[in-house]
Amino acid sequence: MSKDEAETGAREGASRRGFLRAGLAAGGAALLGGKAVAQTAAGDPANLPPNVADWSRYLGEGVAVRAYGRPSEHESHVIRRDVEWLTASRESSVSFTPLHELDGPITPNGLCFERHHGGIAELNPQDYRLVLHGLVDRELVFTLDDIKRMPRVNRAHFAECAANSGMEWRGAQLNGCQFTHGMIHCVMYTGVPLRVLLAEAGVKPTAKWLLLEGADASGMTRSLPMEKALDDCLVAYRMNGEMLRPENGYPVRMVVPGWEANMWVKWLRRIEVGDEPWYHREETSKYTDLLENGTARKFTFVMDAKSVITSPSPQAPINHGRGFTVISGLAWSGRGAISGVDVSLDGGRNWRPARLDGPVWGKALTRFYYELDWDGSPLLLQSRARDETGYVQPTKNELRAVRGLNSIYHNNGIQTWHVTAAGEVENVEVS
Amino acid sequence: MSKDEAETGAREGASRRGFLRAGLAAGGAALLGGKAVAQTAAGDPANLPPNVADWSRYLGEGVAVRAYGRPSEHESHVIRRDVEWLTASRESSVSFTPLHELDGPITPNGLCFERHHGGIAELNPQDYRLVLHGLVDRELVFTLDDIKRMPRVNRAHFAECAANSGMEWRGAQLNGCQFTHGMIHCVMYTGVPLRVLLAEAGVKPTAKWLLLEGADASGMTRSLPMEKALDDCLVAYRMNGEMLRPENGYPVRMVVPGWEANMWVKWLRRIEVGDEPWYHREETSKYTDLLENGTARKFTFVMDAKSVITSPSPQAPINHGRGFTVISGLAWSGRGAISGVDVSLDGGRNWRPARLDGPVWGKALTRFYYELDWDGSPLLLQSRARDETGYVQPTKNELRAVRGLNSIYHNNGIQTWHVTAAGEVENVEVS
Repeated sequence: MSKDEAETGAREGASRRGFLRAGLAAGGAALLGGKAVAQTAAGDPANLPPNVADWSRYLGEGVAVRAYGRPSEHESHVIRRDVEWLTASRESSVSFTPLHELDGPITPNGLCFERHHGGIAELNPQDYRLVLHGLVDRELVFTLDDIKRMPRVNRAHFAECAANSGMEWRGAQLNGCQFTHGMIHCVMYTGVPLRVLLAEAGVKPTAKWLLLEGADASGMTRSLPMEKALDDCLVAYRMNGEMLRPENGYPVRMVVPGWEANMWVKWLRRIEVGDEPWYHREETSKYTDLLENGTARKFTFVMDAKSVITSPSPQAPINHGRGFTVISGLAWSGRGAISGVDVSLDGGRNWRPARLDGPVWGKALTRFYYELDWDGSPLLLQSRARDETGYVQPTKNELRAVRGLNSIYHNNGIQTWHVTAAGEVENVEVS
Repeated sequence: MSKDEAETGAREGASRRGFLRAGLAAGGAALLGGKAVAQTAAGDPANLPPNVADWSRYLGEGVAVRAYGRPSEHESHVIRRDVEWLTASRESSVSFTPLHELDGPITPNGLCFERHHGGIAELNPQDYRLVLHGLVDRELVFTLDDIKRMPRVNRAHFAECAANSGMEWRGAQLNGCQFTHGMIHCVMYTGVPLRVLLAEAGVKPTAKWLLLEGADASGMTRSLPMEKALDDCLVAYRMNGEMLRPENGYPVRMVVPGWEANMWVKWLRRIEVGDEPWYHREETSKYTDLLENGTARKFTFVMDAKSVITSPSPQAPINHGRGFTVISGLAWSGRGAISGVDVSLDGGRNWRPARLDGPVWGKALTRFYYELDWDGSPLLLQSRARDETGYVQPTKNELRAVRGLNSIYHNNGIQTWHVTAAGEVENVEVS
């Protein structure tokens, strides 16, 4: 499925060669900044031009000098960033993924956003224990080695904070998709299906809910319906092949595909099986959606279909002037796979299909592109995701009409970027 | 396709719950080391047992303290390693991916093996240029920004050094899959199809080969047939979402899916279009396969189907004694997708199908598992890969019978691990 779509995308890319060529014929090499080669480098190193760069003239650093690698120093601006005024302390706060500096569907481990309620718990894997108790035939304690001995699977899923884009409910606030949409990441998890652990313990017929508890100082707790637990949840210990990072729950976290990331309890130490939800703090006073009439939507677990254009965006302006450019973004849905993305250049009046590229996994980030020969006129860029259930991403105003402005959660409305004639980009609202 | 297989795998995992349960009924909690909970942790933090770990009692480090994250200090043994006696200098040497410490199909960027011929070229992206010249209608120079403006795709592929497992031609040499098979990694690349750049320049009808040249001190050069260039090669600048790492060719490298990694020229600075191969050093005196009769196989580009069990393996023994365990490994083929993997416990006499799990991409690493209730008797573990062309991974002796022992390249023979009753593992040969 994803393979076919990817190949279709490649063919489309190929067919656009004519477009590029036409541009070259008309505008010359300027289209891509390409310049005819006045003096070509010669095949024989002895004939290389005298201005050959230093990096070609001297031996570089050897292997395994960095036994664990890190990015180039020229990429030192590609980092997670927090917003100091947003929270009272960094221990209960958030840092944002630099979406505007990434591409493809995978987030590298070092750049996955953080959301902690009591700071990063630094667990010793030798002393790690996971308790499974409550309405089970046999209460169990698992060591990390126990978990690693059980049948495991590999699945890529997005984790999105329920409050992602939360500050945009009341209008365009933050200038950059890192801050408006950066509480999301997507990695390949390795873990044991939760249903396998539950089968080991034997779930009693009256069991309907689980309590998930973290080993951090906040004792993060969330209630999880049994139906979801038996469906696709993972007790995960790896991300993108290696062990979880400390800030992502090392050594074990829950993966609850498609549901708000607050339920993906990190540093997982305890699973209690019960017959009703627990109504803990993080599912009552927090992570409920307060409506205009003073009532609140509770247990709004699923993250609905959403998308954002990551480039161009306020932190990633168009620097090359008019001509061929690639509009790139991400789409995702907690209900399943993305079936399509539309892009608008005029604030939602007209829509054109984007090209999905790379794997299209269920409940995962999906990369889309829209190639454009930009004439330099201002744009009101939007993207609109559709998923395999038929759900279509709504506008922010459509959401506000129903939900009001009291909540910071579950804002999956369409985002608008205003691109000026100079290529600068700002976060705006369209009516 | 890969999705179906993954879901089948998940169902198989689920069906094995009965197997686990039977084990529990017979052997009690010892099967998984699970212990009945004498005193369960209580839901209310005030009721937690007094021995609650420190990491639950104190606030941890806050967000964005590590703006670019790194692994837990408890994982400091998970690193690339080199072998000092293997090469005269570290600038022309290799470091190995710790395959035995990883899972799933994706290699995290910090652990991708290195192979340099003149050390790591440290390029400044502002000064980066890619020259495209020779038998073209229009010679071009691309900046990095030019390349980033062109239509791009995302593809996961393995890169394997032609000399991977090279020291095993003459018998079992190195004790660990990191060293026998660790000159391989698999990441998600973002890049421009090479055919798009060639179309920009316009290829003359007489053009049959390309020369790829790196900007490192070795001036790495390889000849690439035009047919492959127009098929699936990428001019890549990202791995797993972020920019390439310096040791992997920052800012631009060639991706030549399924072909030996020596052709994936890093720090790519020049592509020359010609009508015949160049017969440079790295495709004549090196990277050719010397046979018994003194002739050499040349241009042996494709990496044939291969596999290795990564756990248990010499660096990853079975520490838990008898009982349920997971045999895990990797399979790949330069000819396309892996269609199946068989596992033998008795040195190749009997074969049983392994379970493929996660994405099954073409020309990419594919993860397989074989779940086993180990009775503690010694094992001669082997894996055998099959690909979609019908190719079956041969034994080392089958390869030796045809190719002799003069070459260090293209050893894709079946690997054998001897597991002792104590769970220790060593690299052995079977006749």
